[in-house]
Amino acid sequence: MHPMAVKKKQGSSKEPIILITNDDSIHAPGIRALVEAARGLGKIVVVAPDKPQSGMGHAITIGNPLRLHKMQLFEDVESYSCSGTPVDCVKLAVDKILHRKPDICLSGINHGANHSINVIYSGTMSAALEASIESIPSIGFSLLDLSIEADFTAATHYARLLVEQMLKKPIAEPHLCLNVNIPKGELASIKGIKICRQAYAKYDEEFDERKDPNGRRYYWLTGVFVNFDKGKDTDVWALKHNYVSVVPVQFDLTNMPLKKKLEKLFA
Amino acid sequence: MHPMAVKKKQGSSKEPIILITNDDSIHAPGIRALVEAARGLGKIVVVAPDKPQSGMGHAITIGNPLRLHKMQLFEDVESYSCSGTPVDCVKLAVDKILHRKPDICLSGINHGANHSINVIYSGTMSAALEASIESIPSIGFSLLDLSIEADFTAATHYARLLVEQMLKKPIAEPHLCLNVNIPKGELASIKGIKICRQAYAKYDEEFDERKDPNGRRYYWLTGVFVNFDKGKDTDVWALKHNYVSVVPVQFDLTNMPLKKKLEKLFA
Repeated sequence: MHPMAVKKKQGSSKEPIILITNDDSIHAPGIRALVEAARGLGKIVVVAPDKPQSGMGHAITIGNPLRLHKMQLFEDVESYSCSGTPVDCVKLAVDKILHRKPDICLSGINHGANHSINVIYSGTMSAALEASIESIPSIGFSLLDLSIEADFTAATHYARLLVEQMLKKPIAEPHLCLNVNIPKGELASIKGIKICRQAYAKYDEEFDERKDPNGRRYYWLTGVFVNFDKGKDTDVWALKHNYVSVVPVQFDLTNMPLKKKLEKLFA
Repeated sequence: MHPMAVKKKQGSSKEPIILITNDDSIHAPGIRALVEAARGLGKIVVVAPDKPQSGMGHAITIGNPLRLHKMQLFEDVESYSCSGTPVDCVKLAVDKILHRKPDICLSGINHGANHSINVIYSGTMSAALEASIESIPSIGFSLLDLSIEADFTAATHYARLLVEQMLKKPIAEPHLCLNVNIPKGELASIKGIKICRQAYAKYDEEFDERKDPNGRRYYWLTGVFVNFDKGKDTDVWALKHNYVSVVPVQFDLTNMPLKKKLEKLFA
């Protein structure tokens, strides 16, 4: 093992350290809901983007320096805004704020769904995935309600349930990362948790073409969401049937069945 | 199937359409090398970012409109610069330039490695992965040489070999995406192609902390690359031993073994 690799210790203190981030920015109601969900379960530290970063995927800032700004957003919770992406927030938090790995990293609660292909565009889920690369157990939470006035009651309930469970009975996995989506609606209407796989559902893009006052064309990304996956074990199915979907996700993108096929072709 | 889903036809004309993009920008030497590699194999259309987009991952532009600008970079090749990310380039190319799916999407040749965890930060590979989501076969190419004066001879040779093979004998896969890395050095020194899996190798981050002229702190991302994976079937191993590494990659991030484990825990 490279000597640098053991420098940042895994969490081990008695009070767990809970790192919270998101992609909707530190000013979003969803991050407050997540802080409330985790309150009392450990020492919470918030490090989140200073502006909306939806759709940033796993982007990192390499050509520009980053800034951190201490905030007084929560009375009793240390919090910082960061000028970079959600993934930058996780990297900076570990190296420059916590000076160690947190015991868990929570991301969200996102305003809007991150099921199916959304996982790959989502800054919320990329932050969680980044933590798991560093062997920090992580959960990304998303509520199927884009509204700034969304009701986070049910999402907060399930977030607390899952965080509590993961802290009390840690799952022995080197790179644990969960993509949790919560249906819109009242807590009583939700049927429970379903472990799922990522549906093959995507956007059929339609760029809205316009002309600026100088007659030059520009394009707005718009799209229609289409589910091609009829499986009943998918996140899209679960959410449609009012379950909280939980998809374990990984950063190893190797397509193993295709690898075997190619090995034969290139032999 | 949703009626929108069949709107954009899969490639079927006699001359294949080859879409070329990258993340180093349309002005990078690597994209010229890729155009040379594909020359004569079909109708080439280049749609690439107007500025460097390294480390942009799977980011998309959702809060701002996009611009396309017709370029005269290549005498006989239609080319456009795009104000967005590499993934935006693929989406815009299909919807607004080609008005159909290309027969293949090539991304690169990247200046610098995209093996192991780099695949997830890489704009080059995210563009290729985006194509595969749309069922467009795709290959991302990266040369292990960051220099602007890098010698692309060997990379061009292997790129042509693989593109030719994929166009002549298409592999029956709904979402084919290959991550191809080429070692630095002369063509004669390369031992051939190796089909690999993604190594677990990552960066140990060290932010370089500085103070600006006003005394305020800022941070530059730096890091040491560490390979934790001792497998001989990985891309890092293959490249170290002077093979061209080919890793088939997928956008389904579901961790299936962990899904089974969680199903038991949550039963």
